[in-house]
Amino acid sequence: MAEISGILARVRERKPLVHHITNWVTIYECAAITRAVGALPVMAHAEEESAEMAGISGALVLNIGTLTPQIVSSMVSAGRMANAKGVPVILDGVGVGATKLRTEKAKEIMGKVKLAVIKGNRSEIGTLAGAKAETKGVEAVSVEGDLDAIAKKLAKASGATVVITGKRDVVASPSGEVYNIDNGHEMMGRVVGTGCMAASMIGAFCAVEKDYAKAAAAALACFGIAGELAAKRAKAPMAFKSALIDEVYSLGEDDVKRMARVEVIG
Amino acid sequence: MAEISGILARVRERKPLVHHITNWVTIYECAAITRAVGALPVMAHAEEESAEMAGISGALVLNIGTLTPQIVSSMVSAGRMANAKGVPVILDGVGVGATKLRTEKAKEIMGKVKLAVIKGNRSEIGTLAGAKAETKGVEAVSVEGDLDAIAKKLAKASGATVVITGKRDVVASPSGEVYNIDNGHEMMGRVVGTGCMAASMIGAFCAVEKDYAKAAAAALACFGIAGELAAKRAKAPMAFKSALIDEVYSLGEDDVKRMARVEVIG
Amino acid sequence: MAEISGILARVRERKPLVHHITNWVTIYECAAITRAVGALPVMAHAEEESAEMAGISGALVLNIGTLTPQIVSSMVSAGRMANAKGVPVILDGVGVGATKLRTEKAKEIMGKVKLAVIKGNRSEIGTLAGAKAETKGVEAVSVEGDLDAIAKKLAKASGATVVITGKRDVVASPSGEVYNIDNGHEMMGRVVGTGCMAASMIGAFCAVEKDYAKAAAAALACFGIAGELAAKRAKAPMAFKSALIDEVYSLGEDDVKRMARVEVIG
Repeated sequence: MAEISGILARVRERKPLVHHITNWVTIYECAAITRAVGALPVMAHAEEESAEMAGISGALVLNIGTLTPQIVSSMVSAGRMANAKGVPVILDGVGVGATKLRTEKAKEIMGKVKLAVIKGNRSEIGTLAGAKAETKGVEAVSVEGDLDAIAKKLAKASGATVVITGKRDVVASPSGEVYNIDNGHEMMGRVVGTGCMAASMIGAFCAVEKDYAKAAAAALACFGIAGELAAKRAKAPMAFKSALIDEVYSLGEDDVKRMARVEVIG
Repeated sequence: MAEISGILARVRERKPLVHHITNWVTIYECAAITRAVGALPVMAHAEEESAEMAGISGALVLNIGTLTPQIVSSMVSAGRMANAKGVPVILDGVGVGATKLRTEKAKEIMGKVKLAVIKGNRSEIGTLAGAKAETKGVEAVSVEGDLDAIAKKLAKASGATVVITGKRDVVASPSGEVYNIDNGHEMMGRVVGTGCMAASMIGAFCAVEKDYAKAAAAALACFGIAGELAAKRAKAPMAFKSALIDEVYSLGEDDVKRMARVEVIG
Repeated sequence: MAEISGILARVRERKPLVHHITNWVTIYECAAITRAVGALPVMAHAEEESAEMAGISGALVLNIGTLTPQIVSSMVSAGRMANAKGVPVILDGVGVGATKLRTEKAKEIMGKVKLAVIKGNRSEIGTLAGAKAETKGVEAVSVEGDLDAIAKKLAKASGATVVITGKRDVVASPSGEVYNIDNGHEMMGRVVGTGCMAASMIGAFCAVEKDYAKAAAAALACFGIAGELAAKRAKAPMAFKSALIDEVYSLGEDDVKRMARVEVIG
């Protein structure tokens, strides 16, 4: 996919504001990766301002990692304003399937806000797609069925691009395109917050590329390549996390062209 | 104590889910150390899901570092579910003695939830044990009396294992056993979050070892050893924090056997 | 300004408690820099304890980066207690001008609490001073007029010392003194949280120096010098952030004397 480095270049040039209503665990990491890739992060969860902030943003990232009903209400307000202004909304369904609240609230957001991208690991997306799946806390345990098919099914049903992150990332558009992204490194699965950071990257890319499936695939390729580069110099999780964000910051467009492993299969 | 490396090995093998309702300052560090030691962290503070999440967890860590009455109410719900399911509950009494709210709410939790472990620094535990003590913010200033005796007294009164962290860590079981752990490095006292991370380690170890005093002593020995190893390569707090978590990740069972300095004195 | 290293030395000697009611993005970084410079951080946002904690503190830092009306109410309680006890209060107006809520709530705090220092970037302070200004999320886009004059105007109108951070930092006292601080490095603008950390540094310095303009100028000089030293060994944002905090920790009083670039121009 030749456009990946071009989308990255546009993020760096346009510096879109990426508004997050996110969790309290990885909120710094979400901001840091957004800044590192060249966009401008902002976090504003109060219902009294979340919609106004969404209205001036280039993308809105909703992450339910430490949700409360009050925060979800603010997400819906922000999401509706984003919809009204044509701002893409990304939902990261952290922990869907682990508790009733997470599953219900993810579905509530899907029902009330038109989403550009729904992202999760295989059991989170599996749960939303109606597959048999098990989530343990915020970790995927299992899902029945083929991931490409699950992503396609949920994309078609929801009208949103669907992203399943994992060893191989899968991106499915509502119109039936599927991307497989084979960049990344196993250390990314051992660090707290890589999933959340991936959603922030997708937000930044969707702010500058209207083909959201392409934007998501490009974001995941860049993030995965940064992970591969980080793994060359960091062997433990905290050193790796720092290196990962810094490699996103330093990522050369030539590295992206040379290293991207994205296949369009749909 | 020969079992320390065995308990660590069990954490890594079983990967227990450790649910946290914790503070907003060190929440990432709590998740990171939990993951680094081989367990799976999850953070879910909404009262609508905290009990459900506690019910599927291997341990529950309650940390009152940035408490509100609402969060404490959610802690009690989660704690009661944990009690019903036999899941060990660890209370980290951050700042007890500094404000009325912290002292009262710690006592409220102790009254409503059966705790496996109550942890704090010397002035926090001193306050709960009824000793004359002074806490400045979240720092221990002073406590009157012998720490082993204070820990034993509170353990007996509360029925929980009591942990006092400091240069020498003290662990006292309700049945009168006392452990002294002399691992650690003075840099650990200069980094924000080491106390909170110690509670997360204790949670992970209690998830796989029913003798909670032994589990806590083992967790503190491993954490202290990691601190000693980290101090060899990091001389300032942020570098040290990163190294500390990474040394927990890399900790060899042989290092544990060779370096542990745990004395059973009760 | 010869006193800079002396003020730093007093922070390290007296270890003042610096109470924060701050945002959830950079709360760890605020605590870490406070600790690194030699003070003791505490974070307590519950209205049931924020005033009590403020009353035993050496300084109170209010940061509206992720404000809610409830948090602002707690800030006001804490601020009033600080006023009653003579504890200096620092307001960091994060995102003022970006949303109505931020601008209104900053003004509400200014109306209800006597502030020692009001801090922001050029568009945040410009907005509060009544200049034409644009803020994008939490980033300054533009402000009309001379920064020294804007700072002086707001200082005179508010009775507080006013700090504008940027490539050149400006500090104006209510009595008309103006400091320009030319320490710092452009990497500081690429890292999430440097503005918030600067406010924490100012809090620590105001806790030991009653001339708040001098304290703020000294804090910004020290922070900027640490940034210059950090830039010598770190070229990407996460490595730089870690190095920045660690250089504050290691900062030699001789380095401060040799490297400080503070000009009194008012």
